[in-house]
Amino acid sequence: MPKPSLFAQDDVYSRSIPRQAGSRVAHSGAPYDFGVAYPDPESLPLAELAESLRVGLEEEGRGLAKYPHPSGYPPLREYVAEKLARDRSLSVSPEDIILGDGSSQPNHMIIEALMNPGEVVLTEEFTYPGTLGILRRFGADIRGVACDREGFLPDALEDAIRSASGEGKRVKLIYTIPTFQNPLGWVMSLARRRHLLETAQRHGIAILEDDCYVDLRFEGEPVPAIASLDTDGVVVYVGSFSKIIGPGVRLGYLAGPSPLLDRISAIKSGGGVSQLGALAIHRYAVSHLEEHVRSANRILRRKRDAMLAGLADGFGELSDVGASWSRPRGGLFIWLTLAPGVDMQAVADRALREGMIIFPGIRLSPEGNSGHNCARLCFGYDPPRVIREGMGLLAGICRREAVASV
Amino acid sequence: MPKPSLFAQDDVYSRSIPRQAGSRVAHSGAPYDFGVAYPDPESLPLAELAESLRVGLEEEGRGLAKYPHPSGYPPLREYVAEKLARDRSLSVSPEDIILGDGSSQPNHMIIEALMNPGEVVLTEEFTYPGTLGILRRFGADIRGVACDREGFLPDALEDAIRSASGEGKRVKLIYTIPTFQNPLGWVMSLARRRHLLETAQRHGIAILEDDCYVDLRFEGEPVPAIASLDTDGVVVYVGSFSKIIGPGVRLGYLAGPSPLLDRISAIKSGGGVSQLGALAIHRYAVSHLEEHVRSANRILRRKRDAMLAGLADGFGELSDVGASWSRPRGGLFIWLTLAPGVDMQAVADRALREGMIIFPGIRLSPEGNSGHNCARLCFGYDPPRVIREGMGLLAGICRREAVASV
Repeated sequence: MPKPSLFAQDDVYSRSIPRQAGSRVAHSGAPYDFGVAYPDPESLPLAELAESLRVGLEEEGRGLAKYPHPSGYPPLREYVAEKLARDRSLSVSPEDIILGDGSSQPNHMIIEALMNPGEVVLTEEFTYPGTLGILRRFGADIRGVACDREGFLPDALEDAIRSASGEGKRVKLIYTIPTFQNPLGWVMSLARRRHLLETAQRHGIAILEDDCYVDLRFEGEPVPAIASLDTDGVVVYVGSFSKIIGPGVRLGYLAGPSPLLDRISAIKSGGGVSQLGALAIHRYAVSHLEEHVRSANRILRRKRDAMLAGLADGFGELSDVGASWSRPRGGLFIWLTLAPGVDMQAVADRALREGMIIFPGIRLSPEGNSGHNCARLCFGYDPPRVIREGMGLLAGICRREAVASV
Repeated sequence: MPKPSLFAQDDVYSRSIPRQAGSRVAHSGAPYDFGVAYPDPESLPLAELAESLRVGLEEEGRGLAKYPHPSGYPPLREYVAEKLARDRSLSVSPEDIILGDGSSQPNHMIIEALMNPGEVVLTEEFTYPGTLGILRRFGADIRGVACDREGFLPDALEDAIRSASGEGKRVKLIYTIPTFQNPLGWVMSLARRRHLLETAQRHGIAILEDDCYVDLRFEGEPVPAIASLDTDGVVVYVGSFSKIIGPGVRLGYLAGPSPLLDRISAIKSGGGVSQLGALAIHRYAVSHLEEHVRSANRILRRKRDAMLAGLADGFGELSDVGASWSRPRGGLFIWLTLAPGVDMQAVADRALREGMIIFPGIRLSPEGNSGHNCARLCFGYDPPRVIREGMGLLAGICRREAVASV
C-alpha cells in the first residue's frame, strides 16, 4: 500500500495560502438555473467567433509561435481603449491596459497587489461572492456599506471610514460594482460617483471599479465611469467580454495608472493572455460586437421582463411573505427580499430538490451575516417561459417555507 | 496639472509583492533570434486549429455561455491523462489534472502553494529563468546543484540537502527539468531519476518535474517520467502544449496528488482555463497531434543540425576562445561555453547591436553568480540557413570579445 502523499501533510504548504480545498467540481445546471450569472446561451455568436479566428489566424497566426505580449495582444488593447473612450468617457491608452482571464484574474491581481492582511476593504452591502473569496484569501477586513438605489449612502461611507480609522486600521480599497450592481441591480448615480471619488481621494483610498455588466443596458442613459472622473489616479477600472461574448472565453481587462500596472505585471501568472482567444475576440469585436450587444440585450430584456412578470404573478398575492424585488434597467440580476423571518437558505435547499438553483443572500454578504431573507436571481440563462414558470414554483416554495417558519 | 497617482506611493502596495516593475514590453525579434524558446513558426497548424475550433464550437459551443470547469475542459484532461499514460508511463486520472495558462501558471501555482520565504529550493546548476523569477518572488532560497550529462550529481545533491539542513533551513522543493533540460539539453538517466526520487522521499522534499520539452525528441528512447516512479506522492508533474502547438495558445497542465490539487484550486487565478483554447486544442490533438509532433521534430532536428554545423564551422579553429557546446538529442537549446575569461554578457550586448539575440548564462544561474562565459542558444525559431549564418557571426563576435578580454 502506498504511503499517504507528502502533500497530505499540512506543513508542506505555504503558511499564506488557504487551509480549505478549492472547488474542483463544475457548476451543475438544473431545469431552473438562476444561480450563476450566465449570459443568454442561444445568442452566442459561435459561427462568427470561429470565422473571426480563422481570419485572424490567416492574417497573423504565425505569432502563436511566440509568447504573447505580456499585457496581451496589442490590437485588442487598442480596441478596448477605443471602446472605453466611446462608451465610458474614459481616456486611456492601450499601454494603460492589461488583458487577463475574465475579470476575475484582473480583480485577483489588483487585490493581491494592494492588500496586506487586516487592512480594510469597503464594498456595497451585498456584492459578488467571487471577489469576496479573493479578498478573504488575502486577509482583508471586509466591511459592507449601506446603499440605496443610487449607490453608497454618503453618511454610511464616511462613517465606515471614520470607524476603521478609529480602530487604527487602514482603509486600503473600496470595491464597487457601480453599474447594474451584482446583486442589487441599481446603477450608481453621477452625484454618488462624484461623492465616492471625492471621498476616496480625500482619504487616499484606492477604488476598484468593477464594470463588467455595463454593456447590458436595456433602458436609460449611460452614466460615466468613476475612472473617467478621476483626477488623482486613485481608480483602477476592470471590464470583461464574459457577459457580452461568453464567460468560457475568459477575456477581461484592467485599466489604471501606470505605477499600478508595473506592479501587476510583476505578479501576473501565466504570461500574456491567450493569443487564440484574443485574436478571435478582436476580429469579432471590431466588426460585430456593437450589433451583437444590441440584439443580446433585446433578449435579456425579455428575460428580465419574464422574471418580473413571474414574480408579480407568483408573489403578488402573498403579502404573508412580504416579498419585494428590484427592477433593474440592465445587467443579469434581480434581488428578492422576503419578510425578515423567512430563511432563504432553507428556500434554496428546498428549491434545489425541486430542480431550481438560486443564490441565498448570505453568500453575497461581505461579513457573511446579512441577507438571510434575500436571494439573487439570475435571469440570463433560461428561456423566458422557463423563467416565468420558475418564479411561480419559487413563490410556492417561499410560501411553504414562510408558513413553516411561523 | 493632475496630482501624482495614489499608486505612485509605495505604501499603497502589499508588502509581499515585488518592488520592481514587471515587463510590459514584448520580446522584440531580431534578424537572428536565438533568445527565447520558440517552436518552429512555419509548421504551426493554423488552418487545422481554426477548423478544429469550428468543429468544437459546432458540437458544444453553447458551453461558452457557462464558466469553464474550474480544473479545465474535462475531455482535454482525459486526453492529457491518456497521453501521459502512453508517453510518460504515468497513470493519472483526469481528476488528478488541472489545466492552466501554459506551463508557467501551473509552475506559479505550485510554487505559491508550497513556498514560505527563506525555504530552500534546489535546481539544476542552470535552469529556466521564468521559474527562477517566480521562486525569487516567493522568497525562496534558490541553490543550484552541480550536474553532469545524466542529471544531478548524486553527491552534490546530498551535500546540498545536508548543507541546508546544517543551517537549520528546510529544503521544501526540488525543481527539475529532467528531459532536454533548459538550458543544458541533457536527459536525466533512469538511474539518476530513481536516485533523485529516493533522496526526495527519504528527506520529505517535494519534486516539481517540469517536462515541457519531452515531446521534442529527435533521437533515442524515452525515459519514464520521475512522477511515474513515485510511490510516496512527492512529485507534481507539469506539461504543456506550448512547444508542440504554440506558446501563444497558453495551454499547459499539472498532474499531482489530490491534496495538492485541492490547495491549488483554492488559489487559482482567473477561473478554469479558456474554453475556446481548450476546445481548439482538444479537437486538434485527438486527431492530429502525434503526426504533427513527428513532422515538427523533423524540422527542429534540421535546425539543431544547422546550429551544430554552424558552431563547428565558426568555432572549430578558434581554440583561443575555448568553445565547447552541448549536442542535445531533442528540445530547443544548445549550451555554449567559452574559455573562463570571456564575458558572455559583453558578447550578447555586441551581438544585439549586430542583430542577434542570445541569452547570457548568468540569466539562467540560480544564484545569479555563474555562467559568465556561457550562453543559451535556442534553435527553434529561425530557418536553418539563418541559424548557420548566425553561428558564423556569433563566432566572430566571440573571437573579438576574447581578444578584447585578454
